[in-house]
Amino acid sequence: MDYQAFFRAKLEGLRAEGNYRDFAELERKCGAFPQAKCHSGPEHVTVWCSNDYLGMGQHPAVLSAMHDALDSTGAGAGGTRNISGTTRAHVELEKELADLHGKDAALLFTSGYVSNWAALGTLAGSIPGLVVLSDALNHASMIEGIRHSRAQKVIWKHNDLNDLEAKLAALPANAPKLIAFESVYSMDGDIAPIKEICDLADRFGAMTYLDEVHAVGLYGPRGGGIAEREGLMDRLTVIEGTLGKAFGVMGGYIAASVELCDFVRSFASGFIFTTALPPSVAAGAVAAVRHLKESNTEREEQHAKVSDVRTRLDEIGLPHIDNSSHIIPVIVGDPNKCKFISDILMRDYGIYIQPINYPTVPKGTERLRITPSPVHSKADIDHLINALGTLWSQCELVRHPLAAQ
Amino acid sequence: MDYQAFFRAKLEGLRAEGNYRDFAELERKCGAFPQAKCHSGPEHVTVWCSNDYLGMGQHPAVLSAMHDALDSTGAGAGGTRNISGTTRAHVELEKELADLHGKDAALLFTSGYVSNWAALGTLAGSIPGLVVLSDALNHASMIEGIRHSRAQKVIWKHNDLNDLEAKLAALPANAPKLIAFESVYSMDGDIAPIKEICDLADRFGAMTYLDEVHAVGLYGPRGGGIAEREGLMDRLTVIEGTLGKAFGVMGGYIAASVELCDFVRSFASGFIFTTALPPSVAAGAVAAVRHLKESNTEREEQHAKVSDVRTRLDEIGLPHIDNSSHIIPVIVGDPNKCKFISDILMRDYGIYIQPINYPTVPKGTERLRITPSPVHSKADIDHLINALGTLWSQCELVRHPLAAQ
Repeated sequence: MDYQAFFRAKLEGLRAEGNYRDFAELERKCGAFPQAKCHSGPEHVTVWCSNDYLGMGQHPAVLSAMHDALDSTGAGAGGTRNISGTTRAHVELEKELADLHGKDAALLFTSGYVSNWAALGTLAGSIPGLVVLSDALNHASMIEGIRHSRAQKVIWKHNDLNDLEAKLAALPANAPKLIAFESVYSMDGDIAPIKEICDLADRFGAMTYLDEVHAVGLYGPRGGGIAEREGLMDRLTVIEGTLGKAFGVMGGYIAASVELCDFVRSFASGFIFTTALPPSVAAGAVAAVRHLKESNTEREEQHAKVSDVRTRLDEIGLPHIDNSSHIIPVIVGDPNKCKFISDILMRDYGIYIQPINYPTVPKGTERLRITPSPVHSKADIDHLINALGTLWSQCELVRHPLAAQ
Repeated sequence: MDYQAFFRAKLEGLRAEGNYRDFAELERKCGAFPQAKCHSGPEHVTVWCSNDYLGMGQHPAVLSAMHDALDSTGAGAGGTRNISGTTRAHVELEKELADLHGKDAALLFTSGYVSNWAALGTLAGSIPGLVVLSDALNHASMIEGIRHSRAQKVIWKHNDLNDLEAKLAALPANAPKLIAFESVYSMDGDIAPIKEICDLADRFGAMTYLDEVHAVGLYGPRGGGIAEREGLMDRLTVIEGTLGKAFGVMGGYIAASVELCDFVRSFASGFIFTTALPPSVAAGAVAAVRHLKESNTEREEQHAKVSDVRTRLDEIGLPHIDNSSHIIPVIVGDPNKCKFISDILMRDYGIYIQPINYPTVPKGTERLRITPSPVHSKADIDHLINALGTLWSQCELVRHPLAAQ
């Protein structure tokens, strides 16, 4: 078999359907973010699609903690958590995260992706007869974790309580069950009815697994996420989060009971057989989590900026999904047009918004996903709105608000 | 179902068989490594089980690059590689790694575990009818990747060319095939016959996937691994490596053809849907890789220290696996005794060697895995040998060399 020809053909297929991805090569300017230097386009760009939602990646407390950790302990952990890779910073971070979510324990992973994959894979793969009830729009990492477990999976319609209830009721009453869902869905920005899902879980004897990666740091009085904001943290069996978005660094975690965390710690291949996070990364995350437990400034400013961008989009009639989160998806609906608009925004306006195409979103719902943050200025917003307005006219794109999803 | 009781029972099972893991909580002293502060035992310990094989985790060039990157670009990447997370440092690092292995391209992952899981899972899962021929002692991450792909898997006896040949010959001649193996096996420290495996691959039309995580930085004139040392890099389809061991930081990668890397980049869920490595980590890795391309000092000193420890173990008759790598496995063969010796070494001698128990190694082969490095002093070695000698007598353990494996 000609393996190279196979790879080439598959890549050609992606190109033909407009789904081939070119990565923008950036150099963030620490202290000036969302401004960045671009090595694959115009020299100066404003980043409008980062998941460093609050600009914590350039927060002095985070950077100072990372510098200190580099000086005191060095670059890497040097081993798996079990074999010389557990440091003071990891243990401290796990305590902070358990406290953040009101749980007795937390467990760190190298990424949010790995935390979902390893925790769901291990939980669902270990409990005999367990059925996973998975929201239809769950993140790829959750889907892969469930797939990995080879447990029975039942997909319920996205955020649809009636469908979830019907599917729970159709299962044997004594079957162990796990309901897996997210709080803020990344690509539509809509929010799950957590309380009602927990009510159903209680009624049918199911565990609950909530992915809060797009909510931790951003919602709740201490940044504990949507479940904290709604006073529901104690009703969730597992809360999963990331250190790579609002906390500005890298890594993932679960917060849960001591026994559940210890179980995953002891049996998850993706936890056991991998080098621990660098102590400097863990130290930076500790600083970010602590800061956002105390400070509401960043959250308030972000909400104001999001609200401003939404209003301005409405004023010029640009179609965006109306949700109650910080994520603003402007729908284009065609991969080639989406990429074209993104390219012109970058080339002519120095505005960087990566086109979001399949497989990240379903075909036909290609979009520009805008994430305003406290570090975007009024001038940044003016420039964005003017550029989008001009471009929408030039490209003769439809202007009307989408129905709320 | 009482989920908590289930977790407790499973953990009790681990404890009963001596396989429950307690993590030593360390604080490496940058500049003084392998010395570390211990927060879960005696205050001062010497680490003898780190995978920071060359002490690059405290190398000034690595730390300086990381400090600079923190100052110039901030803490985290802020997004996936596709959505604002590709920085100059990532692109530079991929070029360094491609060059290190004499390949046209390289692709970064968040860890070595993820690189194996995602690359093998994607390659084996995408090519219709592909059969994976997997060495019996491959790492958990490779096994999980192959499992993930759901491709047909044929396990061949560890490092056994006759068995590999027979298994290749038994498959249809025109079936696409991938031979997956490692160069240095982590737990026994033995080395694969790479040339002969490549000869078989050529004869039977198979791709080759070589995991060099315990060899990159350590072997070959520029640290390209065993395949570089033996002049075989061009014969391998994929070389996989880590930035978390000899390179002292964190992350994993594959080096291969442009088309293969682009294919994995475009289709691997574990690459696409995860936040990129922090730029500072990538910058540190660039510095480590560049340094070890130029400098042989660390490799030569490591080899001298390994040889010294082996000789001294032989002098006092302690059973260790005789291999040609830098890994010295001292076999105990019982999980409880292994943990006991490790505990006494830590408590009474300030020597930290994590016991290696199931599932990392098969039951009955529990061991102390010693990894001498250039930063261990002669006094460190004297202290280690004296402690092991005393302890072997106290515990009435057998003294005789194991046969070479």
